[in-house]
Amino acid sequence: MRDFTTDHSALALNTASLGHNLEGHGAGWSPERVIDACAERGFGGIVFWRREIGSRAAQIGARALAAGVPVVGLCRAPFLVGPLAPAGRAAVMDEFQAAIDMTADLQAPVLTIVVGGVEPGSKGVTESLKRVTERVAEAAPYAAARGVKLALEPLNPVYAGNRSCLTTTRDALDICDAIAAPNLGVAIDVYHVWWDCDLPRQLARAGQRIFGYHLCDWLAETADVLLDRGMMGDGVADLRAIRAGVEGAGYAGPCEVEVFSAQNWWRRDPAEVLDTMVARFRSLC
Amino acid sequence: MRDFTTDHSALALNTASLGHNLEGHGAGWSPERVIDACAERGFGGIVFWRREIGSRAAQIGARALAAGVPVVGLCRAPFLVGPLAPAGRAAVMDEFQAAIDMTADLQAPVLTIVVGGVEPGSKGVTESLKRVTERVAEAAPYAAARGVKLALEPLNPVYAGNRSCLTTTRDALDICDAIAAPNLGVAIDVYHVWWDCDLPRQLARAGQRIFGYHLCDWLAETADVLLDRGMMGDGVADLRAIRAGVEGAGYAGPCEVEVFSAQNWWRRDPAEVLDTMVARFRSLC
Repeated sequence: MRDFTTDHSALALNTASLGHNLEGHGAGWSPERVIDACAERGFGGIVFWRREIGSRAAQIGARALAAGVPVVGLCRAPFLVGPLAPAGRAAVMDEFQAAIDMTADLQAPVLTIVVGGVEPGSKGVTESLKRVTERVAEAAPYAAARGVKLALEPLNPVYAGNRSCLTTTRDALDICDAIAAPNLGVAIDVYHVWWDCDLPRQLARAGQRIFGYHLCDWLAETADVLLDRGMMGDGVADLRAIRAGVEGAGYAGPCEVEVFSAQNWWRRDPAEVLDTMVARFRSLC
Repeated sequence: MRDFTTDHSALALNTASLGHNLEGHGAGWSPERVIDACAERGFGGIVFWRREIGSRAAQIGARALAAGVPVVGLCRAPFLVGPLAPAGRAAVMDEFQAAIDMTADLQAPVLTIVVGGVEPGSKGVTESLKRVTERVAEAAPYAAARGVKLALEPLNPVYAGNRSCLTTTRDALDICDAIAAPNLGVAIDVYHVWWDCDLPRQLARAGQRIFGYHLCDWLAETADVLLDRGMMGDGVADLRAIRAGVEGAGYAGPCEVEVFSAQNWWRRDPAEVLDTMVARFRSLC
């Protein structure tokens, strides 16, 4: 395993961790200010959300690269299925393509895909996962042509109804196997997979197909399953064991901290949040 | 598969579905009144919670049997591990034995086990599951001597931190395999397992070790992961497919409706709730 105690250049910020402090809210940090704050602290990369980028992808991507904290990923493709997906197949595929384009324009290597929940009118996840597979298969060649990797992110099963009928690393790899596109892999987020006893086996199976590794912690007493994630060390996930599996499979990329925390971390000074991340990352992850 | 459209004698009430309407709350129905209401509607069984029984187990069990709605299970053993378990091994095992005794005194065949969350001071689920296995192995012979089956219930992974480090049917069967006691099996609750693509395979593996089947529905937009379960038909779980797997494995026992629903079903007249259950069970399950 990599040693982060003296080198945290693998640390990446997912801007979701600053929540209400981004432009238009609270402390009002712009993408540029976030980039500079990460650069000052030795972060190795940054991951933005599409709504923060708007039409400035090329500009922000170049700025981040010049500052030494390249954009290492983009959150995220639209929901491809389920009650929260854009209405109709054409709308989904248009937005999917726009997300791929934005990733390329940011000079980011990876677009994260959260697949969406159960298709209205159907029951269980089987039909929805089939549709996901079709849509990802259709988009993968375009992404490849633009130099973008697609990372399927399984989400905690609590979201299976509305946000992600894809709930396990096993199922994500089944989709990868079915599509067999070289630019298709998975993103492993400890919040979503920490409970899964099958994870070590699936990480070994994934091999070079791990395109992202996301950090936070699972609080034993979780007040809200969307917006009450813990900072690393404050919860019960076995972060070291999960990273051992991820790196054992061959992953050597960024470790992206993504802490949705409306009542705690989002209310703090963003500088304090970033400083805490660095300290926790070096000592606990 | 069994045909429930003309015969709902497999339907059982888990009293959790009446929530605030039980003794001491709202409509204030006593165990006897619940038994009579189930008998009037042709329910085939009833499942109580320990706090509703107190010291009247033999009396309530006999009353239910005489009314033709035998007590088919008891909720539940204490948490065996984790932050909400009784303090210390001796306290856990004493309460576990008391729950086994109450099950026997009720003349109920099955005690449900929800294992508890991650042991304080540990990370991940591995250590906690080992301790669960030790404690269940220790209790199983006593339960057998009292004629009680123990049903390990995997819970939705959203509860893994504080309520159940046991999250999948696969892991529950692994514990059953490790202990290999003839009175140890699993309870399958659609709320907890509906998302799991591995379920059909695990149900086939379970065979005769399925000791309980619990019904409700998963609402796509769930407001609260403890107290916002849906009535059958109102959510996205594929109830027929799950029952096909359960019965395909050989299960022919009660189908126990357990709808925790603080803002909806618990606020209604309990008679309406029971009538709705019968109608939904006959047409949708």
